[in-house]
Amino acid sequence: MSTTNTLSASDRVNGVPVRQCLDLVEAVRQNRDAGQTRWRASTTWTGGFACESRIRTHTLRLDEPDQLGGSDKAPNPVEAVLAAYGSCLAIGYTLNAAVRGIEVRSLSVDVDGHIDLAGFFGIDADVPAGFSGITTRVHLDADASEQQLQELHRHVLATSPVGSILGRPLDVQTELVLPAQS
Amino acid sequence: MSTTNTLSASDRVNGVPVRQCLDLVEAVRQNRDAGQTRWRASTTWTGGFACESRIRTHTLRLDEPDQLGGSDKAPNPVEAVLAAYGSCLAIGYTLNAAVRGIEVRSLSVDVDGHIDLAGFFGIDADVPAGFSGITTRVHLDADASEQQLQELHRHVLATSPVGSILGRPLDVQTELVLPAQS
Repeated sequence: MSTTNTLSASDRVNGVPVRQCLDLVEAVRQNRDAGQTRWRASTTWTGGFACESRIRTHTLRLDEPDQLGGSDKAPNPVEAVLAAYGSCLAIGYTLNAAVRGIEVRSLSVDVDGHIDLAGFFGIDADVPAGFSGITTRVHLDADASEQQLQELHRHVLATSPVGSILGRPLDVQTELVLPAQS
Repeated sequence: MSTTNTLSASDRVNGVPVRQCLDLVEAVRQNRDAGQTRWRASTTWTGGFACESRIRTHTLRLDEPDQLGGSDKAPNPVEAVLAAYGSCLAIGYTLNAAVRGIEVRSLSVDVDGHIDLAGFFGIDADVPAGFSGITTRVHLDADASEQQLQELHRHVLATSPVGSILGRPLDVQTELVLPAQS
């Protein structure tokens, strides 16, 4: 878009460094190797249901509610997935609004999922252990027409990393490593 | 199992209140309505790519790394999904080891995923925006035979809520709500 050509490196829209983001998109378009990324988390069990995950320089603690036998020091893993989806959408709207020159005034996302515990408890093998479905409401107040915002919405849904993780079946390989026998 | 019949309400294995957990499983087995649960997160955009999610009494902050235009105050959403899977597995091993009377000495989980940014950036519609796959290594030191731990491993993988969310295509409905026009 023509407006983005005049942006300098320090210009921000919605707090997003638009020039830096557009340069990165262009770098990946020119060299697809630049877009290959690895992401990691290392989780350590700290007793009961409490877990601590190291992610680069960050720590993410999860637990379970009292009713499920936890100590409720943190959200549980399925709640973290809902927050990850809400946050992923919020980041997608903010970024894609910024590159379109649309100012976001406020943005919040409510995510809601249903789980039948018969799956996790091993009572019924036909019941999925995870969510049976997820419903989400995005509350967006931004300086653009309804048509522009509906186009933004379609683009964000089609390119959401966590949306893709939820909506598509993923190949997950999980290996058990036991201590070497002495 | 016979050993669990002698557990009192205050007895813990691996820090897990085993009697409480078994009673809950039995309650769901007797009345499947008791296993129907709803989980929620409410995410608020706080500027740039920073987001704050309220989950019951807890707060989960996510952001993006500097290289992607964020302020790197927290993990990003796809990293939170990896931590959620690692933590979900850790909770599954701990719980199911406890009900089998197996003491866990140490437990950690490394989760690793690959993303081609061409999906998120809208460069190539054939590239998934999320992970192309996830590989996980579970390091478990526990007081049981290899055969018992492999059976535990199979049970945990088959009943992991986040494992189910990752491995199966999920119905995700996401609605855009705009302010009422004045």
